[in-house]
Amino acid sequence: MASKHILIVPGDGIGQEVTAVGKKVLDKIAAKFGHTFTYDEALIGHVAIEATGNPLPDESLEKMRKSDAVLFGAVGHPKYDNDPSAKVRPEQGLLKMRKELGLYANLRPIKLFDELLGASSIKPEILKGADILFFRELTGDIYFGEKGRKNNGDTAFDIAEYSRYEVERIARKAFEAARTRRKKLCSVDKANVIETSRLWREVVQKVAKEYPDVEVEHQFVDATAMLLIKDPRRFDVVVTANLFGDILTDEASQIAGSMGMLASASIGDGTGVYEPIHGSAHDITGKGVANPLASILSAALLLDISFGMKAESEAVINAVDKVLKAGFRTRDIADAQTPADKILGTDAIGAEVLKFL
Amino acid sequence: MASKHILIVPGDGIGQEVTAVGKKVLDKIAAKFGHTFTYDEALIGHVAIEATGNPLPDESLEKMRKSDAVLFGAVGHPKYDNDPSAKVRPEQGLLKMRKELGLYANLRPIKLFDELLGASSIKPEILKGADILFFRELTGDIYFGEKGRKNNGDTAFDIAEYSRYEVERIARKAFEAARTRRKKLCSVDKANVIETSRLWREVVQKVAKEYPDVEVEHQFVDATAMLLIKDPRRFDVVVTANLFGDILTDEASQIAGSMGMLASASIGDGTGVYEPIHGSAHDITGKGVANPLASILSAALLLDISFGMKAESEAVINAVDKVLKAGFRTRDIADAQTPADKILGTDAIGAEVLKFL
Ligand SMILES: CC(C)[C@H](C(=O)O)[C@@H](O)C(=O)O
Ligand SMILES: CC(C)[C@H](C(=O)O)[C@@H](O)C(=O)O
Repeated sequence: MASKHILIVPGDGIGQEVTAVGKKVLDKIAAKFGHTFTYDEALIGHVAIEATGNPLPDESLEKMRKSDAVLFGAVGHPKYDNDPSAKVRPEQGLLKMRKELGLYANLRPIKLFDELLGASSIKPEILKGADILFFRELTGDIYFGEKGRKNNGDTAFDIAEYSRYEVERIARKAFEAARTRRKKLCSVDKANVIETSRLWREVVQKVAKEYPDVEVEHQFVDATAMLLIKDPRRFDVVVTANLFGDILTDEASQIAGSMGMLASASIGDGTGVYEPIHGSAHDITGKGVANPLASILSAALLLDISFGMKAESEAVINAVDKVLKAGFRTRDIADAQTPADKILGTDAIGAEVLKFL
Repeated sequence: MASKHILIVPGDGIGQEVTAVGKKVLDKIAAKFGHTFTYDEALIGHVAIEATGNPLPDESLEKMRKSDAVLFGAVGHPKYDNDPSAKVRPEQGLLKMRKELGLYANLRPIKLFDELLGASSIKPEILKGADILFFRELTGDIYFGEKGRKNNGDTAFDIAEYSRYEVERIARKAFEAARTRRKKLCSVDKANVIETSRLWREVVQKVAKEYPDVEVEHQFVDATAMLLIKDPRRFDVVVTANLFGDILTDEASQIAGSMGMLASASIGDGTGVYEPIHGSAHDITGKGVANPLASILSAALLLDISFGMKAESEAVINAVDKVLKAGFRTRDIADAQTPADKILGTDAIGAEVLKFL
């Protein structure tokens, strides 16, 4: 019987719709397990820019720092995507949050619910049993280095940077996780070309010595992009830099049938932030068809990692599993065999999850 | 009846085995169509380091400049991969060649031979008809910017850089190609985070105005990594920066069934270079099992692009198609249904291609 304060940060687009469902699931868990969860909300992204001119208002950051965990939605808006010269952008809010909260480790578990074997574009016999845990570094790399223009704006530059301690701490987290799993770690870099990757490989090789029970391999990012699709089962824990992790985990969402199923945990020095890996998806915003399961599974990660509530977390995952077993699908995970009356909208599939809790 | 001088640059690992077969195909084409092809060889990569200490000796570069086209193998050696501090590396030879020859456009056509529909890990119904032409920028980005260490070696950095004219020239090539195809162009960047991508998007938007008949979309690299697998048929021409192109084209090799099938053309200011997209694959080097079809298809690209020999190029592609139709496979493109006696080694499948020419 714990008392916890959870901050809901829906952000933009379908972020609003899916976190609303995630919150209902947290509420139900509190009732069922006798916990007291209190909530607050904060702004980030495009909605924060509209309201305050700032993609991450100080007030939001303060609320994040003071809460026990954050359930996050998504940020982004097509308006900025088509205007490369915009000075204030929704994504700045997300990046600032990551940096300010010291969220250097982004965990992205990629695991297919058996019922979704058919929903992926990859063959079921290639997918069956695939279970990968990505550790994406989240506060360094080309995301946070100096960037700008020179030559009257005709040349653009971005600096990628990594220091030893940044690689060490994420590598350690990944090795620790590998120990509790199949004891395999794949570190992904581009050490044949870039210097930050050479430092990365050096440090991972060094940290590996402390984990002789974990089998380590180093792969180039290009080869990994290929191997993930060719043979996903060869991977257990994958650790990689910020940019490579961004690309590879989105790709790997196809292993889980759909992006709409994938949750992520960003952890580090303070409050943990839990969010779907999908974006704000303005093309389907407001239509009530967004898949809330990634937000629900993010709530499950939150319960497990930030609150140490294993049973509660498993209850959520089991409820999602039962909903899928009962044949319910959102549009993105339906296939040709799904009967029309089993294809549900955001709230309706959320309600099914609540029923099974 | 043309007279051409072709430089064979096998490089490392299976590069040796596959270019030998590619050369035989060029020879046969010369005989069949009444051309005179003369050849020379040059060193690059690990073999060049072993022989001269230099991954791209001046002599090799001179020979490249003087030849009408280069048939290239691969570079790389595990020895360097496991030693991130090595100062001289095989890949430096490749990068220097690209820079010195001004090879700014790397064309990677991704097209599945119908007979290989089953060889991919992606479902046949998702793949059927997929036909993508990648334009990867090849002489800029984080590959060629300043890189190094600071803080006593504890911090590594790499600078990514693009100038307007670099984006413009590759964008134009991509738009021109789109005009001859399905008139769709997808430009891939990470403009929501990095400045080089914002310049990239700005320039592509500007160049697009000159091609109102081509339908343009901009996608983020993470979303593209996902969409390539989810729905490869939505893409026609894809244009992107050096690093993103490296990752996405390796990933896209799964669309073509295997990396062993994919050829690429690097073109720009002078001599064109034609090579498989696969690497040196030291794990299978010397075993005689490497798939030479990518090198053979690279020869086809060479005939088409550098020599303007369309009929000759098509003859090569048709011969490869016939070999596949006859049921012959190398190990990497065989599937559970392939009878053992149809699985051929490098030279044997090369001989089948020659028979059909
Ligand atoms: C929105 C964007 C800045 C972000 C990123 O690139 O990190 C997103 O793609 C993600 O993966 O969380
Ligand atoms: C070997 C390596 C430097 C090279 C690259 O990254 O460009 C290779 O992966 C390629 O795609 O040609």
